Formats: sequence, structure tokens, C-alpha cells
Amino acid sequence: MARGLDLLTFGEAMLRLSTKGFARFEQASSLDLHVGGSELNTAVTCRRLGLKAGFVTRLPATSLGRLVENKAREHGVDTSSIVWSEDGRVGTYYLELGASPRSSRVIYDRAHSAISRIEPEEIDWPSLLNGVRCFHTSGITPALSPAAAVEVSSAVRAARAAGCLISFDLNYRRRLWSQEEACELLTPLMEDVDLLLTTEEDAERVFGIRGESYESVAMELVERFGLRAAAITLRENTSIWRNRWTGIAYDGARLYSGPEYDLELVDRVGGGDAFTGGFLYGYLAKDDVQRALDLAIAASALAQTNPGDLNWTTLEEVEGLLQHGGKRIDR
Amino acid sequence: MARGLDLLTFGEAMLRLSTKGFARFEQASSLDLHVGGSELNTAVTCRRLGLKAGFVTRLPATSLGRLVENKAREHGVDTSSIVWSEDGRVGTYYLELGASPRSSRVIYDRAHSAISRIEPEEIDWPSLLNGVRCFHTSGITPALSPAAAVEVSSAVRAARAAGCLISFDLNYRRRLWSQEEACELLTPLMEDVDLLLTTEEDAERVFGIRGESYESVAMELVERFGLRAAAITLRENTSIWRNRWTGIAYDGARLYSGPEYDLELVDRVGGGDAFTGGFLYGYLAKDDVQRALDLAIAASALAQTNPGDLNWTTLEEVEGLLQHGGKRIDR
Amino acid sequence: MARGLDLLTFGEAMLRLSTKGFARFEQASSLDLHVGGSELNTAVTCRRLGLKAGFVTRLPATSLGRLVENKAREHGVDTSSIVWSEDGRVGTYYLELGASPRSSRVIYDRAHSAISRIEPEEIDWPSLLNGVRCFHTSGITPALSPAAAVEVSSAVRAARAAGCLISFDLNYRRRLWSQEEACELLTPLMEDVDLLLTTEEDAERVFGIRGESYESVAMELVERFGLRAAAITLRENTSIWRNRWTGIAYDGARLYSGPEYDLELVDRVGGGDAFTGGFLYGYLAKDDVQRALDLAIAASALAQTNPGDLNWTTLEEVEGLLQHGGKRIDR
Amino acid sequence: MARGLDLLTFGEAMLRLSTKGFARFEQASSLDLHVGGSELNTAVTCRRLGLKAGFVTRLPATSLGRLVENKAREHGVDTSSIVWSEDGRVGTYYLELGASPRSSRVIYDRAHSAISRIEPEEIDWPSLLNGVRCFHTSGITPALSPAAAVEVSSAVRAARAAGCLISFDLNYRRRLWSQEEACELLTPLMEDVDLLLTTEEDAERVFGIRGESYESVAMELVERFGLRAAAITLRENTSIWRNRWTGIAYDGARLYSGPEYDLELVDRVGGGDAFTGGFLYGYLAKDDVQRALDLAIAASALAQTNPGDLNWTTLEEVEGLLQHGGKRIDR
Amino acid sequence: MARGLDLLTFGEAMLRLSTKGFARFEQASSLDLHVGGSELNTAVTCRRLGLKAGFVTRLPATSLGRLVENKAREHGVDTSSIVWSEDGRVGTYYLELGASPRSSRVIYDRAHSAISRIEPEEIDWPSLLNGVRCFHTSGITPALSPAAAVEVSSAVRAARAAGCLISFDLNYRRRLWSQEEACELLTPLMEDVDLLLTTEEDAERVFGIRGESYESVAMELVERFGLRAAAITLRENTSIWRNRWTGIAYDGARLYSGPEYDLELVDRVGGGDAFTGGFLYGYLAKDDVQRALDLAIAASALAQTNPGDLNWTTLEEVEGLLQHGGKRIDR
Amino acid sequence: MARGLDLLTFGEAMLRLSTKGFARFEQASSLDLHVGGSELNTAVTCRRLGLKAGFVTRLPATSLGRLVENKAREHGVDTSSIVWSEDGRVGTYYLELGASPRSSRVIYDRAHSAISRIEPEEIDWPSLLNGVRCFHTSGITPALSPAAAVEVSSAVRAARAAGCLISFDLNYRRRLWSQEEACELLTPLMEDVDLLLTTEEDAERVFGIRGESYESVAMELVERFGLRAAAITLRENTSIWRNRWTGIAYDGARLYSGPEYDLELVDRVGGGDAFTGGFLYGYLAKDDVQRALDLAIAASALAQTNPGDLNWTTLEEVEGLLQHGGKRIDR
Repeated sequence: MARGLDLLTFGEAMLRLSTKGFARFEQASSLDLHVGGSELNTAVTCRRLGLKAGFVTRLPATSLGRLVENKAREHGVDTSSIVWSEDGRVGTYYLELGASPRSSRVIYDRAHSAISRIEPEEIDWPSLLNGVRCFHTSGITPALSPAAAVEVSSAVRAARAAGCLISFDLNYRRRLWSQEEACELLTPLMEDVDLLLTTEEDAERVFGIRGESYESVAMELVERFGLRAAAITLRENTSIWRNRWTGIAYDGARLYSGPEYDLELVDRVGGGDAFTGGFLYGYLAKDDVQRALDLAIAASALAQTNPGDLNWTTLEEVEGLLQHGGKRIDR
Repeated sequence: MARGLDLLTFGEAMLRLSTKGFARFEQASSLDLHVGGSELNTAVTCRRLGLKAGFVTRLPATSLGRLVENKAREHGVDTSSIVWSEDGRVGTYYLELGASPRSSRVIYDRAHSAISRIEPEEIDWPSLLNGVRCFHTSGITPALSPAAAVEVSSAVRAARAAGCLISFDLNYRRRLWSQEEACELLTPLMEDVDLLLTTEEDAERVFGIRGESYESVAMELVERFGLRAAAITLRENTSIWRNRWTGIAYDGARLYSGPEYDLELVDRVGGGDAFTGGFLYGYLAKDDVQRALDLAIAASALAQTNPGDLNWTTLEEVEGLLQHGGKRIDR
Repeated sequence: MARGLDLLTFGEAMLRLSTKGFARFEQASSLDLHVGGSELNTAVTCRRLGLKAGFVTRLPATSLGRLVENKAREHGVDTSSIVWSEDGRVGTYYLELGASPRSSRVIYDRAHSAISRIEPEEIDWPSLLNGVRCFHTSGITPALSPAAAVEVSSAVRAARAAGCLISFDLNYRRRLWSQEEACELLTPLMEDVDLLLTTEEDAERVFGIRGESYESVAMELVERFGLRAAAITLRENTSIWRNRWTGIAYDGARLYSGPEYDLELVDRVGGGDAFTGGFLYGYLAKDDVQRALDLAIAASALAQTNPGDLNWTTLEEVEGLLQHGGKRIDR
Repeated sequence: MARGLDLLTFGEAMLRLSTKGFARFEQASSLDLHVGGSELNTAVTCRRLGLKAGFVTRLPATSLGRLVENKAREHGVDTSSIVWSEDGRVGTYYLELGASPRSSRVIYDRAHSAISRIEPEEIDWPSLLNGVRCFHTSGITPALSPAAAVEVSSAVRAARAAGCLISFDLNYRRRLWSQEEACELLTPLMEDVDLLLTTEEDAERVFGIRGESYESVAMELVERFGLRAAAITLRENTSIWRNRWTGIAYDGARLYSGPEYDLELVDRVGGGDAFTGGFLYGYLAKDDVQRALDLAIAASALAQTNPGDLNWTTLEEVEGLLQHGGKRIDR
Repeated sequence: MARGLDLLTFGEAMLRLSTKGFARFEQASSLDLHVGGSELNTAVTCRRLGLKAGFVTRLPATSLGRLVENKAREHGVDTSSIVWSEDGRVGTYYLELGASPRSSRVIYDRAHSAISRIEPEEIDWPSLLNGVRCFHTSGITPALSPAAAVEVSSAVRAARAAGCLISFDLNYRRRLWSQEEACELLTPLMEDVDLLLTTEEDAERVFGIRGESYESVAMELVERFGLRAAAITLRENTSIWRNRWTGIAYDGARLYSGPEYDLELVDRVGGGDAFTGGFLYGYLAKDDVQRALDLAIAASALAQTNPGDLNWTTLEEVEGLLQHGGKRIDR
Repeated sequence: MARGLDLLTFGEAMLRLSTKGFARFEQASSLDLHVGGSELNTAVTCRRLGLKAGFVTRLPATSLGRLVENKAREHGVDTSSIVWSEDGRVGTYYLELGASPRSSRVIYDRAHSAISRIEPEEIDWPSLLNGVRCFHTSGITPALSPAAAVEVSSAVRAARAAGCLISFDLNYRRRLWSQEEACELLTPLMEDVDLLLTTEEDAERVFGIRGESYESVAMELVERFGLRAAAITLRENTSIWRNRWTGIAYDGARLYSGPEYDLELVDRVGGGDAFTGGFLYGYLAKDDVQRALDLAIAASALAQTNPGDLNWTTLEEVEGLLQHGGKRIDR
């Protein structure tokens, strides 16, 4: 079913319940409901920019599980390979948006989700990845449970065998596992990874790479793991509502830098995933690291200006931003 | 801390996430957040009518746990004995309000809650129940987990030792356990119960009591278990938005019936719990089964006309309804 | 300024703060804001049906006072004679919509309003009423304060002198004055009244008229006070959300009855005022008591199906209802 | 692209802007946005029940056009054959929900939509319908414009050639064309139609068929046009919020009747389209007219209890209603 | 009817449908409804500051048309000369508010509006403008359709004949016509214009005036077209949510500059129209270009801090800002 | 009942009705409802940080009065000493949040509130304050009415007699009384005050203290009135949505300064009260002026980032801010 896809991503998609109008959790009498999850977000960005993208996960066969699928389908993401289960729940997280000097806060309620209980026979990776150009997942997925970690290994092995490009976002989450656990499990995985997308902070937390500069971190990653390319997002927190945002990349041959944007943040969650989606689009569709980086930065800058984890931009808007910037009313 | 309370209830309080405007779950982009739980609801009704009422549960020490406590405190319910844990989650349920011929639907997401992981030493029941007039819990609590079932037994034993009146609502929930499990666990508990509140349907599902009439079910319950009194709520589902509502009671000596109301349902969840709260108020404060039944029916009729599980009526309103009914604007 | 008006009404317009979704007052975290007041509501109905209508009141010169004026102007009601004051507040009332068996409830917070502090010289009634066809007020206005009662007397005297038709709605409000006070003050006023609009209940409470039938009450009113006509609204409270609604009239010569409607009530507040507005429109524009009564009933039936006190129907809709009834989608 | 579809429908999908809380249009400060359109609604019902369904239309290549596509994709409807245009707008309609005795009202703002400007070469019907089991459209589509009428003829011709079952819903809309125009254009089309779904009222308005009973209308339709089957929905308007709902069918051999439901209407728009969707599902998947009729009635009864034109039920719910009815909370 | 007005403006008023909370169009499930239009906005500002202002347009005689009139009346704007039509629609536009680096976007859906189909005989300009001090329209109106362009010419001719001051805002809209069309049509119109309000950008796009400074543009405009005065708004886009805002004016004799404000933008749409309204108020009521400019800048600065196109400030607030600035809570 | 409290505060708690989304008052169709009042806000902050805190006021025995009590109880504030009255209303204020250059505005509607009509015998201060560590009120309370001023004197006298620490916030409100009245009444009160919390501006307006620096004002206050300590909040209004915030303190021996924060203001109302609450917590629980000042600044900085007057922070968050600042998402 997934044949012919440019990209297949694998991970958990969650219900996100966020307070309104900067209310604290304890003040909530109503919560906004969004759907998100790093690998889903990445698939959505790629699909919106123009690739055929699919998303695999395991969801309980309930209205809430279907709600998650619907939101992926709404963007045209292929969901035909989702595994539907009788057990487990939909992972959930609560989000409270901050305002300086109060940080935004996340409360995870994702334990015991259907995907964390995935069983070895449920996904036939070799057949699923047959004909897929690129497979992507992130460090969150193996952190969900031992079963999920096994599944990631199987998927990566199958992707390698199927000749897919393999993309990985470190995405270290301290509430899911320790730095040591992450390092131990992710290091061998790196052997098969082609593209690594991360932050300087995560590179240090997971692999202990502490470069003198962002550039040296990217270079170290590429060299240590034999990557085709590494890209790093750079966020400067001017305040909770204002950030500066850019990224760099290294492909073993040269360093790339892209535009830097001042963001008026509406919802920064999913910014990194949109960066990855933009990068993969550029890498797969344009085969050009500089274009990939530029598109990654612009797409993810725009993605942080709409509510929700998912990215609602179009290729036309991303190109427009790269060419003109954008502060006027377009009418 | 709980000394001097008229009533102490024990059970799980949950976050309730309900869709708006009769939307289906899959349509939701925002969910109303309420707090509810059978034993909390009962404590709130008693407190609003005038008793000193407390509620014991186990909650994680997070903003979401505090949110639950806040909602109990808002009504003046004593929460000083709540056990705060590092582990477990806040039980959650999703509610979709129906319209004929579509039933309202509940999706439980309450597994692994903090209370289901309660440990034997965490609540000092003898000291907690010292000086409390009445202890109440329901069939939901022991169904949560083996640990919770053990805790219910400990609580009931301690209540008996402390000379408390013991009140119990059968509240059979098929998604939590089988009828056989319920029967096996609840039958011995009945030995210590003084007041039993339930529906005809639950009496049959749990104890296999199938009377020729509501009255015979109440009589059978009192006689089989040596109760001081049993009360049964009667709901006739004219449609999803319109019900007829009343109840009966039997105290071993005589049968009592009360007023019957046509309900325009705003939110029927918690109706039975409000009935119990009204009954306990009448029984404890007025020492009169007929008054208890009348107050139970009227308080719970009113409770089904406001959004949320909790009851927001006052004694004055309940008395007013019993005396005048109410269809005019009061201005 | 008001010259050329068909109708000028005088009274208090208030802010109305109502809970949402059948929430109780204590549950509110947000309140809907409407503007209403018996005499304003009547002016709005007349204006929407096609007459030139004006409204006089006294409001504080604040944003809240302007808000009230804006809502009258929105419907095209002439507000050029409103008296703007430095003192006093905008009268306010809180509304909680009920559901059977819970009555809707009003909490008045209207004391000390600007109009209750009106001073004798502030309105030049003779010049204001010059050229106006009909003057209308209700029993609420003199009940606001002694100063307001004096003002009503001045207005009625001036209206008589100017040759206006004088219309009055009894509108007894027990929270504003006693039945004895109302009777004492309103009885002499009746001498100048031409049209009286009321309910059977108010006729009894204010004037002690207890007829054997609605018809006999109307006849008694016309005869006792030498009215040109009296009209009475009849509401049968099937439930809080469903009422039956009609009215009758008597003009000294014959009794009139009109259509009866089943109402699915969205907001019954202002129903009587819309009836009066419809009646005055029919009486002034069609000079026909039967037409006046029919229009009154239909306009006020429709007025109870939209949120807020004000009436948003059109003459076309009212005529349509009188001719066809209306249960289909009009598309 | 559409190959392998069970059903392909063709028509206009619109933005629907509806007032909230029974507000009149003039009261609106916010409007709910839904997407709907008879043929889209039918495709969605079929897809939700389990068929592979696609929808063809013409939309402008704007965010609003994409919004329409997204809502179809959200349900899994194939949208890959939508024609994207530079000209035209998205058809729009405004909806005001009524309450007795005030009818719900629709204001169409659909003129000049992209689909009304469709050009002959834009859809390659033969290739699109190749391998499709059933083609469906309704009387609204040819009424949109002469160009749309031409397109319907082309589609039906191609469907016949491709061996598709051809389904048609009369759906007469008086604001789009006269009864005479409808009759003239639709009569020849009937030659190719296999299944006709309609109301008694539309059968009379378009074809002048005035049977003595619903049954005789269905029989007359089947016989006059040589249909495989005709089905008629029956709605009794008890009030605006309460209807009785059922349907009948005739297949040339025998008459079928199904269950009748009392509806508490949340949103009756799209009820007929869901009936058609349910009927087609039953006809195509079960090959049984009685099953088709039962599923049609139950699915469309449920569809009228959620907000919006689209149907959000599942096959499991529809079957559950047919077996048990539904007035309890399912928990 | 319009006699005695200080200002009469002519143009299109539209429904504006905007997304909430910075949502993208594709995310919308509800849209805020506002009413706006350049010439209406200007009339509202003038009326709120204290002038008698009227607005002429052509609207369909539907609830949506009345909604537009209501919103003008709410502010006290005279609407008695609006032309009500059976044909045409209410022009509509969709607005998506941005956040850096994402621009705000407008989707126009205004084609085929009632005003674009205006016919020569429908407005009797000579009688309408008799006694009016100032007539104002903008470059949007003639761009709507050839019929509207003809009407603008008629209006300006009649205004000249009636001795009105004639005010014009260039308001170039690229989606309505080309720069060449605008130049060709507007150049002859300039002969009769007394006051021109615009931006540097529009002056260049329409008339090709490219000054070395804002001042030289204003001077060039006055001199080329023999204006009494020209005023130019200056906006510096620090970000989407923060702008710097001021303006300049030239009256043939001297150059005027005013205060500059940092704006925290809530809704910048209508800023220029409020500037014009403030300028006209100052020019007509104070007869002083410096005062006019100061009031224009302050009124329009405030107007950009409330939701919607319309201006809700008062003269007192505008004067207060000019005197004190304003960052504290006023309590 | 209040025995064992660390803190008892006395003052008025009001309903606050605020517009949404930066709407002006005249635009409101819905208002957010919060509860606030300087002394209540202070009690809430202390309670949330960990002290036992109570609040005394006088409220009418209505749903609105109960709503106020509920909101205090929700945070665990002891309300058992509230005086319930048959007369008076709940004080109310309307709030419109601004955006540069438009100031936020408050309209008070608090006259005639229940507390302003308090009578001498209603609160038994000696018994109430027995065992309380600290009594706090502010300059608003005596300004409410002569009766309230008398009550403040009684309370302070009783507090002195009971050996309570006495804390006072100047809180000058120009709409309640003149600077002269405030000075005359508050000066003698200062004799009994131990801790004074205020702004530089209020110190000047009430006591005419105009220091060369904030520090000199604090020193002058301590010395003139023999205080144990004075603390002053410092707010720099960068814009309406951005402020810089810090404070200083003086205890007769040395000057203290604390951290300074950039605030992205969500709701600045109650900022000063939270500062007081934080200061009292530190002073009472830590007995350390530097800690008190740090906690005051951090707690009040956080308090200005959530909607409503009340403070929803926790001690953990306050400590976290003092240690780490906070701009990242905490997940």
C-alpha cells in the first residue's frame, strides 16, 4: 500500500490538550485538542510541500484513534499502514503555553499507549518499505518502550535492506529515558543513518558531543557516524513569544548556513519536526543540501506561527518567504 | 484532619473531557474539562446541602492532580486527606453527549491512575475515620485494581470499627470488571454495609436479584444483606434529552416513594451520585427515610440540569422544587 | 428631535449577563452580554416591523452607557433624546437559563442606576412628545425609584396633553415593589392609559382582578379603566424549553383571539415586550385590533426563539408565520 | 487514479457558515465553518461505512479550496481527481438553525463558483470512471449552471459506457431553477439512472408524480423510468428540534419499509445525503435492498444528531442502532 | 434625508470572515464576523469623533445586507440612503492574521456584489449631496466594476456642483485592477478632489510619483492635482505584531508632521481609513491641518488596537493619547 | 475558626468582567468572569506558596456571593469567617485590556457593595485574630465607605492587641477617594503597621513622599512610620504587553534589591498583590527580607503571565524561576 511513497515515517502520534489564552493548567475549563507527534509532523510537512508521504503507527481502534488518523489524512498523508489494536490507549500530552518569564510546560500522559505495546509481527517492514525512497524516525520512538525500540531496529534494518535513505532526528526527551539509555540504544542505530537532524543540546546530551561551535558539532556528527549529512536547528530565546531561528548543515564536504528569522511565536511545538520535513523535501526533491537547508528553515519558521503541532504552510509560501520576507498584508 | 466530618467518601476523581455542542469525538477541536467521580460527586452534594464532607483519593502531585483537588475545595469539600503520589496518572474519561437515537458515549482512559496503584500503608484509615459519622464508597473503587479493592476492604473494616454508618453505591461498570468478579468481591463487603444505593439493573447484574418490581428488589436487597435501608433510582428514557426520574426506598419496615420529575437533561452524568448525596444528607441530617428519599430525588433531578458531573444546587432550591416545582422565571 | 416618531418608549435599559450552555451562576467563567429592557424591547420590535420608534432613558456617559445606546441604534431606534449623566450606573441583571425541573433565574443588580436618579428638569416631555403618535412605558419604570415614578407621571401627563395614544404594560416585578405599592401608584395612572398589555397574573397582583377566564379579565380591565383596548398574553409552561403561547384582546366592543404556537424556547425573556411591540405596530399601522393581536402573537413567538431580550424578526417573517407556520428549512 | 473505487460522486462542495446557539444572522459575531455538499456527503457516508469512495468537483486553487479537499480527505474520501482552477470561487451558504415556530433558513451565496464554470475538457470521464462500480450525482449539480448540466450529461454517458451503476438523488432546489427547467433537464437523464433516491415532495415538484401514498410514488418512479430501485425518505416535522424519520424502497418486485426513529435534531442538513450513502453502501456491499434501506435509515438518523453536513457515524454504530436502539449512556 | 450631514461617504461594505487565534484558513472551524469597508470605516471614525456622518452603498435586501447596515447604525452613521437591491451579493473577504515572519493574508470574495451592479438611476446624487459639507470615497470603489466607476464619477460631479469638499483615498488594490487602469481612471477624477489621503507606495503605483522623501511625494501630489491638502500615512513594519506609525501632510503652504506611535497591533485593517476619518474630522471641525494630522495619527493608532475594521475610539481617548500617551491601567 | 492561620486578610473581593481578545467595551458580546480583590489576591498567593491563609469580607448571600467564596476556596483559602448579608451587592469591575498605545481601562461598578455596608458588630475581630500570625489589608478597604474605614481601624486595633504582625499595601485608588482623604485616614493607621508594601507613585500621592530614588522612598517610609520593613515594586512600561519588573525593600538596617524580569504580560492586574503575597510568605516562612523580596518579585512576575487577578504559581515554579529563569519548553 505504501509503495511509491517518497517518505515513510514511524512513531507515536498523540492527542495534545492545551490551555487557551495562556491559562495555567489549573485554570482550564476547556482545552484545545490538536494531534501531533514528531514523525507525523515531519510527514505532514513533506506532504504539504509536495512529496508522497506516509505515516505508520499503532493506534487503538476507537474514536480517538480514528481522530488521529483523520488529522493525518486531512493533509493527504497516507495512513493505510497504521496498525489498529484492541489494547493500549492514545498517548496524550498536556500543553500550557507560557509568557516570559514563565516557560511553556508539557505534562506527558503517554505511558501505556498502543504503540508502546507493539508486537514484533504486527508490521511487515520489508513489504512496507519496498519502493519507499526514505524512512524517517526519531529518538522518541525507541524511548517509548523496549517493544518500540525493537521495532525501530527492525524498521531501520528493513529500510537499509530496501535501499531507503534513512533519516533520524535525535529528539532526546528526558522524561522518557536517561541520557545513558539513549546513548546506548541510539549509538548502534547511527550506523545505518544517512541524515541526522538535531540540536546542539541533544547532540551533547545523547552523544556527549560538545563542539566549540554549532558547525563543529555538525562536523563531528557526520564524521563520527559516517552520515551523508547532519543539520542542526538554532533557536535563540529572546523571550517566550519572540525567538530567533535558523539552522546549519554539513554534508561531509562543506558547511551550509541559511536565513535567520525573527519569530513571533504562536506555537513553537513541532518547529524542529517541520525543519526536518523541509530538509527532507529539499534533499529528496531538489537533491541540494543548500536548498534543503533553506527550505527547512523557512518552512519551520512559518510552522511556528500557527496553532498546533502540525505545519499548514505551502511550498508557495515557503518560497515566498525565502524570496521576499513577509510583514505586509497580502491583499 | 477529617475529624468532625459528617461524611467521608473514598474513590477516584477523574478529568472528564467532553465534546461541545453534540459534536462527535472525531469532530472535536476543543474539549470541555470537568472533574468528576462518583464518590466525589456524592461528597459535593452533601456539602452543598449543608453537611461537612470530605473526600479521600490518591492523585499525582502535578498540576492536573491539583486541578482535581481544587474543584473539590471549590465546593468546600475537605481534601486534607488526599494522598499525593509521585507515580500514576489522573484517570480520564471522554464523554460525547448524544441526541436521539444516538446514545451518549464514554471512552474510559482511566487505567494506571494513581489511585489504582495505592499501597496499603498510605492511608491510615482508623485515624482518618475517627469521629466521622458516615463512610461512603461505590462499586467503582474496588473495580479499579486489586490494590484499590484491598483498600476498600481496609476502609470498610476501619469504618465499622470506628462506628461509622457505611454507605455503598453498587455502580457496576462493565468496562472495569465482569459481573462475576463484582459479585464475588462485593458480596462479602455487603455484610458491613448499612445503606445501599443502586439501580434495579445493577442489582441484577451484580447480585442476580431480579424482582417483579422495583419495590421487591429493594426489599430483597435489605433482607439479603441486612441493610438499614436500600434506595433505588428509576429513570425512564423518553429520549436522550428527556427522561422521567424518581426513586424508591425500603428500610426494612416500610416502602417509600417520592416525587417524579420530567427532566430536560443538560448533563445526566452524576445523577445517581447526587441522589446518593441527597439521600445521605436527609438520612444524616433529618434522620427520616422519607425526607431522605424526597431530597435525593429532587437534588438529583436538579443536578442533571447543569453541565458537568458535579451538583451545583442548594438546599433552598431543592426544598423549593419539592414544594413548588419550577417552570417560571424566578425574577 | 423625536418629532415624527410613531412611537416613543421610556424606561430602563440594562446590561444582561447570562451564563452559557445552561451553566449555573456559580459555574460561570464567561457571561454572554446582551442589552435589554422592557420598553427598549418594545421599541425595537416596532421599529423592525416598520414604524419610526424612539427610546428615552438616562444612562451614564461611559462605554457601558454607550454600549446600551449602540444596541438600540443597531436596530434603527432613535436614541437622540437619551439623557447622559455623570452619576449612576447602568442597571444590570444576571440570567441563568433553566431546564426542567430547574427554573430560569434572574438576579437583579439594578439599584442605583442612572435612570433611578433622574431629576425633574432633565427631560422636556412636552417638546419631546410633540408630534409623536404613541407613548409607551411599563410598570417597571415607576417601580425603579420615587424619582422615576414622578417622571412617569410627568411623561404621561405630557403625552395626554400632546394627544398621544398612551400604552402601558403592567409588568409587575416583585423584587422592585410590593403589590400594594404598585396598585397605589398605577391606579391613578390608568386614567390616562389607552392600551393596556399584561398577563392575567399581573392583573390580579396589581389590581386584584381575578376573572373566571382570561376574557373576563380583559373585559374587566377595559371597563374599570376606560381603556380603548386591553391585550393579555397566555403562556402555558409545558416545560422550561417548551411552552404554548397565544394571547387575547378586548376593545370594549368585542373579544379577539389569535393563533397559538408551540415554542421551542431559546430565550423567553422579552416575549411579552415583543407582544406589545407587535400589538402597537398593528394598532398604529393597520388600525385593526385583530391584526394587532395576530401580529403581536406571531412576532413574540418568533422573538422567543433567538438569544437575547431583543427581537430580531422582520415583518416578512411574521407574516410568513401567520400564513404558513414554519417547520421546514427555507432554502 | 480513481480506479478501484466502489463509488465516485460528482457535485459541488461548499463552505457552510452557520450561526451559533440559534442566533439569527443579524446577531452573528462569529460563524461556524463546515464543509458540505450533497454528493460529498454521500461519498463520506459510504466511505465511513466501509466502501472506497471518491469525490470529483472543481475548486479554486486557494486556501479555501484546499480546506474543502482536506475535509473530504479527513474521512478517507479519494480527492485525487478534483480539478483545480484559477477562476471561480468556493460556493458558500449561510445557515441559521431555527426553533419552533421559526424555520431554519439558508442563504445561498453559491453563484459563480468554480464548478459552475467547469469546461468540457477538464474532466476525462471515461478514464476516471474506468473500474468504478457506481457513479452518483444529484439534481443540484445540473442546476448550478448550463456548463455543469453539460458535465452531468457527459458523466452519466461515460458511466453508462463504463458499466457503472448510476445513482441519482433528485434534490430539487427552488432557488437554483424552476420545476419546469428541472423536469426538462432531468427527464432524459433518468433513462440512464439505475437507483433514484428522493422525497415524495421532490418527485411531485420535478416529475409531477402525486401518488396516493409514498409507496405508490416509489412504484411510479420505478416504472416510469425503468429504475432498478427507488427509495424515498419520510420526515414528519413534529417540531424544529424533533422529527420522525424513516424511508421506503421499491425495486420493481416488492416494497420495503424500515425502522422509524424519533430524532432529536442537532443538524438535519445532510440527512438525505446520508440516507443515500447508507443505501448505496447496503446495495453495493450487501446486494440486498432491505439491508440497504435499513442501513440508509439508521445511518441518516444518526447523521442528523451531529453538527455539520457530514456524517460521522461508523458501521458499528449503525448496526448497533438497528439492533438495540439507543438511549442509555454507553460506558 | 442626508441633509445636514457633515460627511457622506460612498463605497462597498463587506462581511469580513477572519480566523481566530492566528489559525491558518485551512485550520478554521469558526470564523469571526466583522463588517468593514474603507469608506464605511472612515464614516464611522468621523461619527465617533463627533461629526454627523452618512454612508451610501448598495446592498441586497437580505439578512446579510441588513447586518451590514446594522453595524453602521450601531455607531450612529446615517444609513438612510442605502440602496436595497434584489440582485447581487454582499461582498466578502477572508482574513488570516499573521505572525512574523508570516504575513497576514486576505482572500477577496467580493466579485458580483450588489454595489458592483449599481445602475445609473439608483442614486439621486444631486439631492443626496445637497447640504452635505464633504463627500468622500476611495480608489476601491471605481475599481469594483465599470458600473461603480461610472457612479463614482457621477457622485464626484454632483459633489462639486453641490459645493462639497471632496476627499479621496487612493487605496490601490492590485487584485481589483492594474496600475494602468487605476491611473487612467483616477487621473481625471483628481481634478475635482480637494483632499487626498494615501501612502507613498500607492502614490507611486497609481501615479508613478516617486519622491525622494515622503514630504516630496505629498508636495508633488498637491501640486500636480491642485489639491487643498494631501496626507500620507507612514508605517514601519518592525514585525507583524509591532509597527511604528505616523503621518505627514502638506497643504500647499507648509509641511506638517505629527506624533509617532509604537503599535502593538491587534488588527491593522482599517488603520488608513481611521487616519482619513480623523483627518476629515480635524479638517472639518477644527479647520486646522496640524490638528487634523495629529488627530488622524492618534485616532488611527488607537483604531489598530481593537479587533475588526471599525474604529471604536472616542474623541476623549484620542485627545488623551495626544496629551499623555498611555501605558498604565486607567483605574 | 480562623485560629492557626498564618495570615488573615480583609477587603473586598469583586466580580471582574473583562472583554476578550483586546475588544473594546462597546464591542463586547461576551465577558470573561474572574474574581479578584487586592487582599484576596494576596491571601491566595500566600496559600499557594504554602501558608495557611484566610480571607474575611462581607458578601450577599446569593449565587454571586457564593461564586466569590468558591474561587477563594478553590485555592485552599479559609473562608469560614466571611460575613453573609441580606443587603448589598457584589462589587464589580469591568476591565478592557489594552495594546500600545491604548491603555488598559477599568470601569468600577463597586459602589453599594455588601462590604461597604458592613456594621460594627458583624465581625468579632478579637476572636477572629486570636492565634493569627499576620493581618493584612490595603488602602482600598477604608476607601470603600466610612463604615469600611471604621472596620479597618477596629481590625488593626484588634490585630495589634492580638500580637499579629500587621501588613499594609497603600493601594491608592483615585476613583474611590482623594489624596487628602487617603492621607488623613491612613496616616494614623500607619502607627500600627509593621510592613508596608507600595509603589513610589502611591507613596507620593498619599503621603507626599518624593524621594530622589526608590531607595530613599523606602527609607523615608520606614523611618517616618517606624516600620519593620517597606517594600516597593518597580514597573517600567516598555509597552502595554511588555514591562520590566522588580522591587526593592528596606528594613531599617539595610537596602535589598532583587532580580529584574522582562514580562510578557498576559494580565497585569494583581501583580502588586502577588508581590505582597510573596513577600509575606518569605517574611513569615523564611524570616529573611532578602528571601522575601526575591520570592515577591518572582512570584509576582509569574502571576502577571496568567489570565485573571489571582496567582496560580507554585513555590516550585517560583524557586525555579529564581534559579534558572525560564524560556524553554519544560518537557
